[in-house]
Amino acid sequence: MTGETRRIDRVAVIGLGLLGGSLGLAVAQFAPDIATTGFDSDPAVRERARQRGLVDQVCDSAAEAVENADLVILCVPVGAMGAAAREIAGALPPSAIVSDVGSSKQSVMHDLAAALPGHVVIPAHPVAGTEESGPDAGFARLFAGRWCILTPPEGTDEAALAALSRFWERLGSRVDIMDAGHHDLVLAVTSHIPHLIAYTIVGTASDLEGVTRGEVIKYSAGGFRDFTRIAASDPTMWRDVFINNRAAVLEMLGRFTEDLTALQRAIRSGDGDTLFDLFTRTRAIRRSIIEEGQDDAAPDFGRGH
Amino acid sequence: MTGETRRIDRVAVIGLGLLGGSLGLAVAQFAPDIATTGFDSDPAVRERARQRGLVDQVCDSAAEAVENADLVILCVPVGAMGAAAREIAGALPPSAIVSDVGSSKQSVMHDLAAALPGHVVIPAHPVAGTEESGPDAGFARLFAGRWCILTPPEGTDEAALAALSRFWERLGSRVDIMDAGHHDLVLAVTSHIPHLIAYTIVGTASDLEGVTRGEVIKYSAGGFRDFTRIAASDPTMWRDVFINNRAAVLEMLGRFTEDLTALQRAIRSGDGDTLFDLFTRTRAIRRSIIEEGQDDAAPDFGRGH
Repeated sequence: MTGETRRIDRVAVIGLGLLGGSLGLAVAQFAPDIATTGFDSDPAVRERARQRGLVDQVCDSAAEAVENADLVILCVPVGAMGAAAREIAGALPPSAIVSDVGSSKQSVMHDLAAALPGHVVIPAHPVAGTEESGPDAGFARLFAGRWCILTPPEGTDEAALAALSRFWERLGSRVDIMDAGHHDLVLAVTSHIPHLIAYTIVGTASDLEGVTRGEVIKYSAGGFRDFTRIAASDPTMWRDVFINNRAAVLEMLGRFTEDLTALQRAIRSGDGDTLFDLFTRTRAIRRSIIEEGQDDAAPDFGRGH
Repeated sequence: MTGETRRIDRVAVIGLGLLGGSLGLAVAQFAPDIATTGFDSDPAVRERARQRGLVDQVCDSAAEAVENADLVILCVPVGAMGAAAREIAGALPPSAIVSDVGSSKQSVMHDLAAALPGHVVIPAHPVAGTEESGPDAGFARLFAGRWCILTPPEGTDEAALAALSRFWERLGSRVDIMDAGHHDLVLAVTSHIPHLIAYTIVGTASDLEGVTRGEVIKYSAGGFRDFTRIAASDPTMWRDVFINNRAAVLEMLGRFTEDLTALQRAIRSGDGDTLFDLFTRTRAIRRSIIEEGQDDAAPDFGRGH
């Protein structure tokens, strides 16, 4: 605890896809006094980022983007965090806060600490996104009303933590602080396993002999289409999440398959009561999510009818 | 094939929940020359149906509702089809077509044939719905652009089949005709297994020790919230579907768990290529569903941002 406050006047965004682009646009809309620089390793993405004005200045190297930054936010797949951190290490101001938007936090904390010894590293995860990706996908309100989880390592400078919290709040987020290990367990349930299941069922449905792909598509409004949305998410990002949050994902997957096996047994034995009891309990969770403002109340997600 | 045509001037709707109510409203809007009667075994539902005008005339018995009908559509849970059919058997005009909207077709075909020998029975399944239920949930455009699958038994009167097809087309549906057994397999994939998986993961997430229910709700925007929508569907309806389409559900569940186990192994062994390959293939299905008009193209289902 230093008692000082820290100003964030210049933010560098490394990676200009859905998250990085939304971050730049959100700063421009909700915190326009903050200057933004940005970089993406793909020249075509940099070009598109310039056209859309995702950040004030698109730089031609990561080092150039961070050289005057108070805060650097790495918006690359979690498997690329270490490499991105090594790329900026030489140019990073000693006082800059380094953060990220990755979906696994223990791995990111480890990779950033290893690449940037002596720097202030505060991993972060805004729990927000869509199934789209790339420099055309971002929009300023992506983080509005969503939670952003910060996972400061022990001994993190309090002023830096307060500044980073304030930064996310200005973009419309609500901020929570938790241990990285706990984050990884919670998000395994609320994000990683749902994605894994969705990818799996969409894959299963594509590969059947007795049912054609055309039939799967035509009759998808029976529920399947909901799963195809998150199964359309960025493949690189999600490959990296599962590999980097392996332990928590496997633990939660074990719980899920146990529960699925119990339901399978209930169906096989015609035990309608077990099914009915579960199906009644699950309704309450939906209501709570809507009351908490984490989803729309409109039926069918408000799809046009 | 009789060569005659059959007119449908009077439709009786038995069961006035989401599907039955939407049916009545759709007829009033898109086929207003057809008169509708209706019945629900719950007096409170009948009262609400009268207030909303779900059908032209809400009757106080199923027998009264069907006594002049050209077409009777049973809109009750599939486990209640046999009982509903027995209730109308004595009052049903000999020439009336009997159909339904249930999600399993072999069981319904069997139950209706047993209860209504000598009658024209053509089971049907409009692949449409929302997570809501009850007499307040219905709306006229529920079936617009959605597929309605008819599963006529062998030897079904062609004029009756043509009349039923035409009826659904007037409500905005596209009509397909298939074998009941094939229907049950296809819908196990596109509807029943997605619901079972959604119910399971929502149940799993509710019962963890290491993660609180509050955390699950707060961070549900990571993907979990999508699953809570279909896990909020009517418990009675879905209990009956799983019990009545047991064989197809268990077969498809076996396929799903095989595929999930393979992904689990890939995660455990750090085999990112297997994950990446699947995650790339699944994107194509989403695009096809949107091109086919079975889902909105807007990111995140068009949720407000």
